[in-house]
Amino acid sequence: MKEYQINGKRLLKNLFTLAQFGRNENGGIDRALGSRADYEAREWIKHYWQEELGRKVEVDGIANLWAGIEGSEEKLPLVAGSHHDAVPDGGKYDGAMGVMIATEMMQTILEQKIPLRHPFRIVSFTGEEPNPFDLSTLGSKVISGRLTKEDLEHCQNRLTGESLQDAIERLGGHFSRLEQARIKPKSLTAFLEVHNELGRYLESREKTVSGVRCITGIYRESICVTGEANHAGTTMMQDRKDAFLALGEMADAIEKAAKQFNDPNVVATMGYVKISPNEANIVPGKAEGIVDIRTCEEAKTQKIVEEIAKAAEVIEKERGVTFTRRTLLNQPARELDSEIAAIVKEEIEKTGETGIDIVSMAGHDAANMQLVTRSGMIFVQSVGGKGHCRQEYSKDEDVVKACQIALNVLLRLDKELD
Amino acid sequence: MKEYQINGKRLLKNLFTLAQFGRNENGGIDRALGSRADYEAREWIKHYWQEELGRKVEVDGIANLWAGIEGSEEKLPLVAGSHHDAVPDGGKYDGAMGVMIATEMMQTILEQKIPLRHPFRIVSFTGEEPNPFDLSTLGSKVISGRLTKEDLEHCQNRLTGESLQDAIERLGGHFSRLEQARIKPKSLTAFLEVHNELGRYLESREKTVSGVRCITGIYRESICVTGEANHAGTTMMQDRKDAFLALGEMADAIEKAAKQFNDPNVVATMGYVKISPNEANIVPGKAEGIVDIRTCEEAKTQKIVEEIAKAAEVIEKERGVTFTRRTLLNQPARELDSEIAAIVKEEIEKTGETGIDIVSMAGHDAANMQLVTRSGMIFVQSVGGKGHCRQEYSKDEDVVKACQIALNVLLRLDKELD
Repeated sequence: MKEYQINGKRLLKNLFTLAQFGRNENGGIDRALGSRADYEAREWIKHYWQEELGRKVEVDGIANLWAGIEGSEEKLPLVAGSHHDAVPDGGKYDGAMGVMIATEMMQTILEQKIPLRHPFRIVSFTGEEPNPFDLSTLGSKVISGRLTKEDLEHCQNRLTGESLQDAIERLGGHFSRLEQARIKPKSLTAFLEVHNELGRYLESREKTVSGVRCITGIYRESICVTGEANHAGTTMMQDRKDAFLALGEMADAIEKAAKQFNDPNVVATMGYVKISPNEANIVPGKAEGIVDIRTCEEAKTQKIVEEIAKAAEVIEKERGVTFTRRTLLNQPARELDSEIAAIVKEEIEKTGETGIDIVSMAGHDAANMQLVTRSGMIFVQSVGGKGHCRQEYSKDEDVVKACQIALNVLLRLDKELD
Repeated sequence: MKEYQINGKRLLKNLFTLAQFGRNENGGIDRALGSRADYEAREWIKHYWQEELGRKVEVDGIANLWAGIEGSEEKLPLVAGSHHDAVPDGGKYDGAMGVMIATEMMQTILEQKIPLRHPFRIVSFTGEEPNPFDLSTLGSKVISGRLTKEDLEHCQNRLTGESLQDAIERLGGHFSRLEQARIKPKSLTAFLEVHNELGRYLESREKTVSGVRCITGIYRESICVTGEANHAGTTMMQDRKDAFLALGEMADAIEKAAKQFNDPNVVATMGYVKISPNEANIVPGKAEGIVDIRTCEEAKTQKIVEEIAKAAEVIEKERGVTFTRRTLLNQPARELDSEIAAIVKEEIEKTGETGIDIVSMAGHDAANMQLVTRSGMIFVQSVGGKGHCRQEYSKDEDVVKACQIALNVLLRLDKELD
């Protein structure tokens, strides 16, 4: 098979241009779903696809951006892409890199007139990150059928009060076209997403890139403790029902439960905590924590959940408090396509690096796309393991290398899949 | 000495009338410093003192309310009183009971023409409770010289932004008269305050009332933990610097440090907690807790503070986090006047109950008054130990009994002190 070279310099230039939209004074990027920067980034991407690639840009019902080229045979499309929105004060790579790599792949194909049997489409998804509408991987959830119009009709931005419907219209989508945006079964050949790892697994193993075999399951529950709010002076230690101390003990038990597996693919976090009345001179009467558990094996998640239940029982007895638990999310782990993973591994090995495929501990659009078509991912090393922060960084040569591998994988898929 | 009887029925009627100002839909009382209810309660108290007691009401620079009667000899005044403001959703007794008992004492003296050698003044203090200006025992701190005009000039309501100066003017005070409001050394004979206990010490010992020998010292510090905010999925357990888990361990260590004394007069509380970024999917990078330590013995406070330092060192090593500690308040314990305490005890014993005097684990205006004159307190049992909540309750007969004892004590002070 002939070797086609992507243009690394152009790719990096485009990536850093996109990074200007929403750039804040700290050097981070604020480009949440529905923000002015989201709008401007879209305009720039659309303009690039129209002017530089000469493509017609489609904006679907949920405002995902699409562009495509035809194939030489009557086949279902191959798709590549990622998302262009960012976490608050986020970095240049998360999502944007995948979109600009897909763009560079298409530009290379057009420029070098690379023959393709399949149509090839590129996509930039709407609202992948956690955002003030409290919906992540929004664009891919809608097109894969995980979210419907009914689910979205009453959503609003918790900061501004704007309805999701209005925000999506501002971005060029429309709720009347949501159903239409949905991908019909067996209407695609495959989906490929390049993304930075966001963790330090690759760095710790001295890998620049990897395949992804599985996307973590995420289980989330709210743990509320009801104790007794009381005067911090006049309530003797033995008379207290301190809800915060109870929650702290629970957080400790959860950490132990996750650590027992000694497995890089098992983590648990209490990242959200609220106590009440939250006054220095009052014993906390209520405390809430949200625990987030990620594993690729349901049994391990279940084991941790069981230990939460056991700990709750012990702490209730010890402290005279009451636990109330409520599941917020129970998203199973998702295996990605093994054939694509094998091709990614082979293409990595051709570069002289041992190919591995790892578990993604973050959610990605590819997890939703796997519901409607065989999907694969390529991870790029995150220096220092930084993710979801302005410090995130991937080396220029790794970004270029990942794009080249992605193109090679795409051409293999075009050749090998029917 | 002749026995003069207070009018218990009238006392209770007045107490329950005052409880109407700021009454909320839960049956609690919202009457924070500077609120409309604060203003209305003051108007009612002033009206009562003017119309029912026939006194001229003075409002000093910080808006404390005063009324007085002359004595038959050239003596310095005896003073009784408490405060009329309330914690959010507070109860009927805290402060208000002491004001209405002082009022009833004066009304009894006037009605029954009880001869007094000393002038007798009653007071209702401004802003005793924690409030949105972040100043507690404000009125008594100003008149005892603990707070000056310079300290107060830039204070404002953190909820509304109103300056303290404007709020005090609305209530009838004026910053230009703050200096004048200050009590000159040796210008009073004694101060007496009746208050509900707010704790369950008296109830647990089956006492209806008690004297108070000491008001707890309060030490407060802010404990900040700096860890590393990171993705809750992609950050392996062993790579985390979770600031919340570190703070939870600290809270646990503080509880142990306080409990080791097994002393009802030693308590420590982490009542305020804030974590950042406080998102379910991010490992907490920062956490702050405020710890409040109350003891009557400086050495015990110091021991707990030392154990905080030790725990910080251990947790820093274990978790790779950094602790930053800052003292917010270090108010020494205050012994009240032993002679008054002895008289209170004797007067309690005359009612057939064993007299005790206890430590107050809450701050009170009397602690400030002790700086400028010999001061004493009488505590009334809080049923169920409830304090600083709408459920606080003292039995009618205990309220009446405390008022009678307070009058008896006042008449003893009038006779025995010079």
